[in-house]
Amino acid sequence: AFKGAPQISTDDGWSFKPRGRMQVDFGSVNGPSGLTVGEQAHLGSSVEFRRVYLGFDGSMPGGFGYRAEINVANSDVSINDMYLTYQAGRNVTLTLGNQKPNWGLEEMTSDLFTSFQERASFSQAFGFERRIGLNAQYLGKGVVAQLGVFADDPKSLGSDSDKSWSVDGRLAAMPRVAGGTLHLGGSVHVRTLNDTIPTVTYQTRPFVHTTDLRFVKAGIGSATQERGLGLEAAYIKGRFHATAESFWQTVRRTGFKDPTFNGGYAEVGYLLTDDTTAYKNGTYGRIKPKHGLDSGGLGAVQINARYDWLDLTDAGIRGGRQQTAGISALWIPTDYVRFILDYGHVWVKDAPVTANGDASYGADAMGMRAQFDF
Amino acid sequence: AFKGAPQISTDDGWSFKPRGRMQVDFGSVNGPSGLTVGEQAHLGSSVEFRRVYLGFDGSMPGGFGYRAEINVANSDVSINDMYLTYQAGRNVTLTLGNQKPNWGLEEMTSDLFTSFQERASFSQAFGFERRIGLNAQYLGKGVVAQLGVFADDPKSLGSDSDKSWSVDGRLAAMPRVAGGTLHLGGSVHVRTLNDTIPTVTYQTRPFVHTTDLRFVKAGIGSATQERGLGLEAAYIKGRFHATAESFWQTVRRTGFKDPTFNGGYAEVGYLLTDDTTAYKNGTYGRIKPKHGLDSGGLGAVQINARYDWLDLTDAGIRGGRQQTAGISALWIPTDYVRFILDYGHVWVKDAPVTANGDASYGADAMGMRAQFDF
Amino acid sequence: AFKGAPQISTDDGWSFKPRGRMQVDFGSVNGPSGLTVGEQAHLGSSVEFRRVYLGFDGSMPGGFGYRAEINVANSDVSINDMYLTYQAGRNVTLTLGNQKPNWGLEEMTSDLFTSFQERASFSQAFGFERRIGLNAQYLGKGVVAQLGVFADDPKSLGSDSDKSWSVDGRLAAMPRVAGGTLHLGGSVHVRTLNDTIPTVTYQTRPFVHTTDLRFVKAGIGSATQERGLGLEAAYIKGRFHATAESFWQTVRRTGFKDPTFNGGYAEVGYLLTDDTTAYKNGTYGRIKPKHGLDSGGLGAVQINARYDWLDLTDAGIRGGRQQTAGISALWIPTDYVRFILDYGHVWVKDAPVTANGDASYGADAMGMRAQFDF
Repeated sequence: AFKGAPQISTDDGWSFKPRGRMQVDFGSVNGPSGLTVGEQAHLGSSVEFRRVYLGFDGSMPGGFGYRAEINVANSDVSINDMYLTYQAGRNVTLTLGNQKPNWGLEEMTSDLFTSFQERASFSQAFGFERRIGLNAQYLGKGVVAQLGVFADDPKSLGSDSDKSWSVDGRLAAMPRVAGGTLHLGGSVHVRTLNDTIPTVTYQTRPFVHTTDLRFVKAGIGSATQERGLGLEAAYIKGRFHATAESFWQTVRRTGFKDPTFNGGYAEVGYLLTDDTTAYKNGTYGRIKPKHGLDSGGLGAVQINARYDWLDLTDAGIRGGRQQTAGISALWIPTDYVRFILDYGHVWVKDAPVTANGDASYGADAMGMRAQFDF
Repeated sequence: AFKGAPQISTDDGWSFKPRGRMQVDFGSVNGPSGLTVGEQAHLGSSVEFRRVYLGFDGSMPGGFGYRAEINVANSDVSINDMYLTYQAGRNVTLTLGNQKPNWGLEEMTSDLFTSFQERASFSQAFGFERRIGLNAQYLGKGVVAQLGVFADDPKSLGSDSDKSWSVDGRLAAMPRVAGGTLHLGGSVHVRTLNDTIPTVTYQTRPFVHTTDLRFVKAGIGSATQERGLGLEAAYIKGRFHATAESFWQTVRRTGFKDPTFNGGYAEVGYLLTDDTTAYKNGTYGRIKPKHGLDSGGLGAVQINARYDWLDLTDAGIRGGRQQTAGISALWIPTDYVRFILDYGHVWVKDAPVTANGDASYGADAMGMRAQFDF
Repeated sequence: AFKGAPQISTDDGWSFKPRGRMQVDFGSVNGPSGLTVGEQAHLGSSVEFRRVYLGFDGSMPGGFGYRAEINVANSDVSINDMYLTYQAGRNVTLTLGNQKPNWGLEEMTSDLFTSFQERASFSQAFGFERRIGLNAQYLGKGVVAQLGVFADDPKSLGSDSDKSWSVDGRLAAMPRVAGGTLHLGGSVHVRTLNDTIPTVTYQTRPFVHTTDLRFVKAGIGSATQERGLGLEAAYIKGRFHATAESFWQTVRRTGFKDPTFNGGYAEVGYLLTDDTTAYKNGTYGRIKPKHGLDSGGLGAVQINARYDWLDLTDAGIRGGRQQTAGISALWIPTDYVRFILDYGHVWVKDAPVTANGDASYGADAMGMRAQFDF
């Protein structure tokens, strides 16, 4: 059967499927006047491969499964999902290897299915990434619970002196409410930091990923532990969805006050075409247009609006505050092809990057993405 | 169906095929006496993986297709063809992503099917490469027209301050003449350079790729624009083919005269076995031996002779002139396996690399390649 | 047919199969007190991807075959098996490309099937690796003979001044003795070193791979040639196997005495379950549990014990001596999944890394591996 790529399977439990995706992005940021020449050089219009994944997944008789995928978008290798799974019971799956440590709703949703080119600012700022660990998931009727212990990302673990480790748990309920699905959840993260590199840096790009300039940025020295708390809520019904998340990240330090930073977003989206927003088991999924180009139709069109905030100023650390208002239009001509057009206005306050000495200013950003996957 | 690798497809428009190739090269360059020890260390005999490609391509219902391929020959990742295509009409294909910006006949021909181990000197010198862009192709009866707008190659675009962009167009006609196919074409390229790196470097290796020493080399500062004009002609009939191309590259500069460099080649080739040179839609293709090893035969054997020139001296820039006379023998035992043996003599004049103070001298180079693809 | 991944083949000689493997390791080394802070930072507990391979292999009509595989475990690309094969006769296979230069029994055995997480110390110390070359293998009834000429590994060959080359041969007989298989063999290696980098370094990790600290290490300057001699013996019968290997490496030098270093190991192993040790054509193979998880059983369990030594002190070079006593337990729940738990005690003598000034001390190491392949 074709799921983008052919999935070859047998009755006794074998299956195999190649995997891949390409996201090619155009982005443009119009910053304030008064930046330095060096800062300005990062703005303007740029093109990049945002993600290029290649890999395989499969299953074997006996309850085992796997995924092996790399990201080559940056002309190097970054190890993506790379794990062995075991179906330990009807509801319980164990996963060993590189995977997402039970972050919140949007981060756990595949980057193929986000409403904007980029996820929320806090997702980028607080270092959400895949890490090598052992995770357990319980998937019941209307509930998903995930708990795992994790080391660090594969590249960081290339240094044998990296001894960071964390415990990460997430719980979400998804009751049926008024003909739709309500999603309510939260996640907790406690991470002991590698003591040989006691500085953590939190920063986020302005709306698009094509620029490497960050207006807001906090470097926190003498860090010993990160504690994260995320709350997530969503409602999905037919063409409509609304999502809100907030995340609090506390850094424990030796000899200094412990700052707590916060970020979050609220979003509404609507499908202009007669299609249905996809949600399943605690994450958003693939929108499959009822009348795609492949059946003579025009595909699905979704519009979304979002307000996003990130506050990196606390306890004497002045990383700045960034707010973003964004709108997006998604065109999904067929199941495995997607185009995104989005625009955002960014307001920063108390930012370490100043414009003519002013730490508060605005910027405009727009982006486009073309994407396919298999 | 097997096309090297299995192509899995369905009646409703799905298809999928893994892709790969390996080219392992031996090369040897015998330079003039009087080079420095450091320069000599680059000559002599060397072995290398010239290309190792891995990837997939496929098509989807609705007119979409894709290719995703990387080159790992240098023990890193270089993004190769990486694009989404759309069949916009019976004759028109749009391609978005990393691809060749409509260079000339030999460059647009797959490296699997070239007559020598390396393409013409100008192809290397003038920076022909794949770039991220949007391209349109019209393929009619006896004519192909291509026009696109391009940013830069993926690695260069890793720097968000890279703002170079170009418009590249190519037109070729391929009438039937005297029982064979005549190919006549040309391409035009206008590229606005990234102003933060205003130097372009044009250089070429002596005949083989295993050495990193270039006898001829021109660095042009204060560059603002590259303009390229290519002419291409070929005649293909049965066992015989002849090809000639020439390319003029002009660099616009601020405050200096604009140099125009030129390179080109003329080649004839002949199949000693009862086989047919492959050409289709504006490029050379895969020679499939009538009596391959797989059917008890010995495969196809082609011999080729070529004269190649490159002049990197103009407008006060002395990059040198290089001429090469080369012969090659290709053995194609089966459709997807090929061996090349070639020899070239190189004459350089006014070269920046001198031998005992002499800027004009000769060098001999020979190479061997073993190749398979799927 | 599924061999981990689907192998697609036709009657006329085409075949194709994706390949991959993941080994995720936990390792912990408890060294002596008195190391420096920098050295201590390398010890303790660490997690890493030991190997992540992705690739394809296949065969074509006419006697050709190939394998194309990369290792991305270190978040970069290392070219693994990458070659074209030709079946030159009923017993003779030619292999051109990147491959193992006919090392000894354990090194020629796939890393999927070793008895411990890591191979013998000498295997690591003497720089066993894949190199680009042309190899011939004769496989007869009860005998395998291999002889090839090799350049260097692909990454080293990225420098065109690398002119090292070697001749490597191996011969092994495998008579049936007392209901089991006796393996007796040896290999000889003569390698002319690249004269621009005349220093070779021999070193080995303590038992596990997760640490980058080596207690024993010899750097040999003015080296012109490496000569290796390996002897290998094994006996395999049903659940039982025993293996012993020893390897002598001599470095020829200009102006200094030529040191000869030696390493080796002796091992016994036993399957606690009703399963059979796998051996074929000169290497160990895949143990396929009779009663795997896939058929309601618990899989195969093997226990192994090994004594390993490495002596890097000779001819005035004091690299130190390391001995290791190790035990391991392997759990193989299904054919393509394996878990390893092992423990080793290491004794070093005359080591360049000292503990409180003492060059002789002990260390404990334990490790765990989870692995799948397809």
